[in-house]
Amino acid sequence: MKATVMHRAGDVRIEDVPDAAIVEPTDAVIRITRSCICGSDLWPYKSLPEGAAPWRMGHEAVGVVEDVGGDVRTLRKGDVVVMPFASSDGTCRFCREGLHTACEHVGFIGYAGSDGAQAEAIRIPHADGTLYPLPVGEDDALMPSLLTLADVMGTGHHAAKVARVGPGSTVAVVGDGAVGLCGVIAAKRLGAERIIILGRHTDRTALAREFGATDVVAGRGEEATEGVRALTGGVGAHAVLECVGLAQAMETAIEIARPGGAVGIVGMPQFDATPAAHTAFIKNITVGGGPAPVRAYIEELLPDVLEGRIEPGRVFDRETDLAGVPDGYRAMDARDAIKVMIRP
Amino acid sequence: MKATVMHRAGDVRIEDVPDAAIVEPTDAVIRITRSCICGSDLWPYKSLPEGAAPWRMGHEAVGVVEDVGGDVRTLRKGDVVVMPFASSDGTCRFCREGLHTACEHVGFIGYAGSDGAQAEAIRIPHADGTLYPLPVGEDDALMPSLLTLADVMGTGHHAAKVARVGPGSTVAVVGDGAVGLCGVIAAKRLGAERIIILGRHTDRTALAREFGATDVVAGRGEEATEGVRALTGGVGAHAVLECVGLAQAMETAIEIARPGGAVGIVGMPQFDATPAAHTAFIKNITVGGGPAPVRAYIEELLPDVLEGRIEPGRVFDRETDLAGVPDGYRAMDARDAIKVMIRP
Repeated sequence: MKATVMHRAGDVRIEDVPDAAIVEPTDAVIRITRSCICGSDLWPYKSLPEGAAPWRMGHEAVGVVEDVGGDVRTLRKGDVVVMPFASSDGTCRFCREGLHTACEHVGFIGYAGSDGAQAEAIRIPHADGTLYPLPVGEDDALMPSLLTLADVMGTGHHAAKVARVGPGSTVAVVGDGAVGLCGVIAAKRLGAERIIILGRHTDRTALAREFGATDVVAGRGEEATEGVRALTGGVGAHAVLECVGLAQAMETAIEIARPGGAVGIVGMPQFDATPAAHTAFIKNITVGGGPAPVRAYIEELLPDVLEGRIEPGRVFDRETDLAGVPDGYRAMDARDAIKVMIRP
Repeated sequence: MKATVMHRAGDVRIEDVPDAAIVEPTDAVIRITRSCICGSDLWPYKSLPEGAAPWRMGHEAVGVVEDVGGDVRTLRKGDVVVMPFASSDGTCRFCREGLHTACEHVGFIGYAGSDGAQAEAIRIPHADGTLYPLPVGEDDALMPSLLTLADVMGTGHHAAKVARVGPGSTVAVVGDGAVGLCGVIAAKRLGAERIIILGRHTDRTALAREFGATDVVAGRGEEATEGVRALTGGVGAHAVLECVGLAQAMETAIEIARPGGAVGIVGMPQFDATPAAHTAFIKNITVGGGPAPVRAYIEELLPDVLEGRIEPGRVFDRETDLAGVPDGYRAMDARDAIKVMIRP
């Protein structure tokens, strides 16, 4: 079968690999019907860690179950399923608490030698706990939005939950990528009164406005901080969604948070220590976040997708087959595309 | 009048200073009946910042109102009051939300050129918003515990609240100083099931056990981390109270937090960036805290002190008059005393 393999920074290829197959009795194999490229895939695309190649890429998918192991109880061949970016057993104490990304058997798909989802098919460990069956056909018109439940919509929602967004909140979203845009949707959905997006790409901030952003701040660093302060009577936002992962973005997030406010960080941190410790302390800011338990959030978000109340699939502004994936990476890295959907 | 003045690191003197007097119509002057030395006073005692001397020390007190300005409405001469370490107007949006340490008119007593409380008397700005009248006489037997409402008991409570301690929680307290010990009291009071204190001074950890600690871990760094993991089935504590402020203590706090857990930091950070950003992220740990709004907490904690359900005053293991204050600093710095109470 065909799969996406990264060999060096910037060197993404579509190659023949062994067909996905059941290994453990709790596995399923799914034929990928939709996948996509993630903003976090751009970190290795920019600088692949030593020893990580060849890396099978991709961790977001919708697919059709092709085969299941002997212990799989809830899925059958032909089921259309969404595949969260982390596999989880669904039964351990952390899964029961809704933190599936801390599962005692967690696996991060498309990392550390596992199969990737930018491929024709994939083996999924702990299939019962991981995959979520969808009540639609594989070519349903809602497929782009359903695909976002594998990562970006659940991740934006996680940032908003960690940042304690609620009715009446003033929210600032740092980053105008797909996760930031989904963060806007999540903030609006949770009742935010004011949503300020920090971004410099007018096509993206225009989409953010359609999703519910009430204000746009276009600068970075000090300029961004001043912009948010000016919009908030000098005090900052109750909730800040940090959807970038760079130290400067994190510092800005802390600077623009209101005293007593919270920052939800979902951009994979590209720093070893969180900046602005004194500012966070003196203002009593809470900083939290991490890999989103998107499996837990599907239940909550799915009805809104099915009934058209949210349309996170609009973050996909380009579509390709597998052959076009390398150019998809280039386009996202060059900011020519927000997020590329793959139909293998 | 006599007051405590720091001139250089390690050089604390009792000196004659001008008598405390009303300056603004919202001021009160109180005669100090009890004050104390704070663990945070030891930071300048170890290394006084350039240009900070002479520094009038002390930010915790109980006293008797001697004089009030023309706009003071709720206090009168003779009232016995507790003085939180930060002055606040009591009326701004942050005070109304219970975050008095972010008050639009906040003043940190004993900092930046203000009067200090290790003195015979002190001028208090925004007296109506700051001072809390006590329903007892100035020499009540509960005075040591009432004095802790000025800082350490409210601060330990803040760490516990930020770390989301609740019924059934497993809590770890990093630091066996007065704040850490009050953190144990707070955790117990909020319903924690298990309270692990990290400390190496057996007199202090013995007191922690009397306050409700169920376990003691004596090491530091990796040893402490392993100790807490061994006590928690390998997963760590739901809530960690960081009551030190050093980078190593903060790193330990993050390491021993359970996935999805929270760290409440109340030790003034002696670092610019919060360590262990990746560990915190991958475990979805929330880190919060800051200067405790002790003014807001007095209302909640006072009944428990008055009715003897909590006895935070037991953290005072030495008492002195003003002349003995320099030796009190020495004793606390040498860990010969947990916390020194001053009767001017």
